[in-house]
Amino acid sequence: MIDEFAKIEWLKARFELDGDSNGILVGIGDDAAVIDFGDRPSIVTVDAHVENVHFRRDLISCRELGYRALVAAVSDVWAMAAVPRAALIALTLPPSFSDGDFRELIEGIAEAATGTGAKVIGGNLSASESLTVTTTALGTPLGKPLMRAGARPGDAIYVTGTLGAAALGLAVLESRAFGLEHGRRFVERWKRPPINGYALDVLAAVATAAVDVSDGALQDLGHLCTASGVGAVLRASSVPTATGYETSCAALDLDPTKLSLTGGEDYELIFTAPECSEAEKIGSKIGTVIEGNGTRVLDEAGEQIDLGNAGFRHFA
Amino acid sequence: MIDEFAKIEWLKARFELDGDSNGILVGIGDDAAVIDFGDRPSIVTVDAHVENVHFRRDLISCRELGYRALVAAVSDVWAMAAVPRAALIALTLPPSFSDGDFRELIEGIAEAATGTGAKVIGGNLSASESLTVTTTALGTPLGKPLMRAGARPGDAIYVTGTLGAAALGLAVLESRAFGLEHGRRFVERWKRPPINGYALDVLAAVATAAVDVSDGALQDLGHLCTASGVGAVLRASSVPTATGYETSCAALDLDPTKLSLTGGEDYELIFTAPECSEAEKIGSKIGTVIEGNGTRVLDEAGEQIDLGNAGFRHFA
Repeated sequence: MIDEFAKIEWLKARFELDGDSNGILVGIGDDAAVIDFGDRPSIVTVDAHVENVHFRRDLISCRELGYRALVAAVSDVWAMAAVPRAALIALTLPPSFSDGDFRELIEGIAEAATGTGAKVIGGNLSASESLTVTTTALGTPLGKPLMRAGARPGDAIYVTGTLGAAALGLAVLESRAFGLEHGRRFVERWKRPPINGYALDVLAAVATAAVDVSDGALQDLGHLCTASGVGAVLRASSVPTATGYETSCAALDLDPTKLSLTGGEDYELIFTAPECSEAEKIGSKIGTVIEGNGTRVLDEAGEQIDLGNAGFRHFA
Repeated sequence: MIDEFAKIEWLKARFELDGDSNGILVGIGDDAAVIDFGDRPSIVTVDAHVENVHFRRDLISCRELGYRALVAAVSDVWAMAAVPRAALIALTLPPSFSDGDFRELIEGIAEAATGTGAKVIGGNLSASESLTVTTTALGTPLGKPLMRAGARPGDAIYVTGTLGAAALGLAVLESRAFGLEHGRRFVERWKRPPINGYALDVLAAVATAAVDVSDGALQDLGHLCTASGVGAVLRASSVPTATGYETSCAALDLDPTKLSLTGGEDYELIFTAPECSEAEKIGSKIGTVIEGNGTRVLDEAGEQIDLGNAGFRHFA
């Protein structure tokens, strides 16, 4: 089977917008679509959490799952520099899913709805063989929607928060290494993606392009670079990580640089902007946009680090 | 487990809109939600097609499934008297799903996108254990969004097209009764829900309430009546059915009245309106709205017919 991104390329070509745009400003291929059916654009995006693909039920509670699924969907709205406003939740529930599980799932969704500002306005319920939470999120751009295309050579590359903590948390969960110092904090970080609404004003003011980190920073930055027709150089030593990250990686025999740049599911925002103090208020500079293509990661001596063909992709 | 509608009631209460509406005009509980983030309302709804719940892969091709999934989702947009404009498609694909299957599925979706006017502007792809197609559909109301609430005692009850043909087609498929006269036509009717955009002008002009028929006409009309705080009387002999419907039901030992009123998946539109020739241009009168609650079905002699507690509901 061709992989996720080959399928997306094919879909992009198949559903290319024609002259009659019908109020569609941005179609397939960015973090979210942009529509304008009246006098003001809206953002709309959909994201699925699928049992045994995105989560295992023995590793996350129903409440945590609900929270995580909604914040992960809203992350794509933030990545467009848009304010989340509404969400629709399509659930498929297996026979083993109890009424108590259902209520816990909904409470998690409700908590995330309050936290993100996306009100739950609809959805769909279906029986199924496995549990899925598919979230449609809608929002309003603060200014011009912030696309993946728009990065220019010379722009600095920033990331909000820290990278690698979610992947580390999942590793802690999977290896049941709860005794690890900071272990439970990393687990929390995997279960509870960050609320990034605080970053919107700055993003709208200074960013030239943005993408959220769901499949690994390098891979997601790669999408931004491809869309912008540019390349990137990253300094591994500049990648922000959480307290205790290095020692916890060492304890679990994980490569901290590789995990932070390819681990995925951080749901932080990578954005490009002319280097400025405004950008530094919400993010850490991790590299520079260059002419050309591809992303090179350099160590402290300026030598290139090879992280392999990394990042998560479905059907690979 | 509490059934689908008990869950929806619970969700409706949990996510009741508060004073700060955030641009949400209609939340959970109608065919679709209504948002207004600018100067003009939009309709948004989500609908899932789940393997072994809504379809079996041995009974429908990938292309037919794609077509059906998108039209079924758009049906909720039409039921709000709104013009479909855009759709997002979230797919979960099992390992057995080939690239050829994928392309066929997408071609079916593309055909329905052209037929309905809903452009595909985004979506999500995920690996999974089973095949699901979850469609978010967006539209613009022609006038005021047409709700389930609004029917008034004395209104006539109309339905577009015919009822029962889809359920009959599924019965033909499941019993492999392809030799039946009209058999393949009914199968087509199950596989290809109707394109009901032609009804919008009249709906917007005269209808007081509407709902689409996805779970069985009686059950869906029941939702409309509950939302409107009214009851209904239907004449079984007035229910429109397709050519060959009665004889085919007889051949398969199916009760034609019960199948037409409880069979589901017709994706026709039930609407209420003051009796008028405009309404008759798009629908057949099948009954009358009355004060009170509940729906009574009468035979030609005016005697009440008991069709049991019928209609499809998940988790029942």
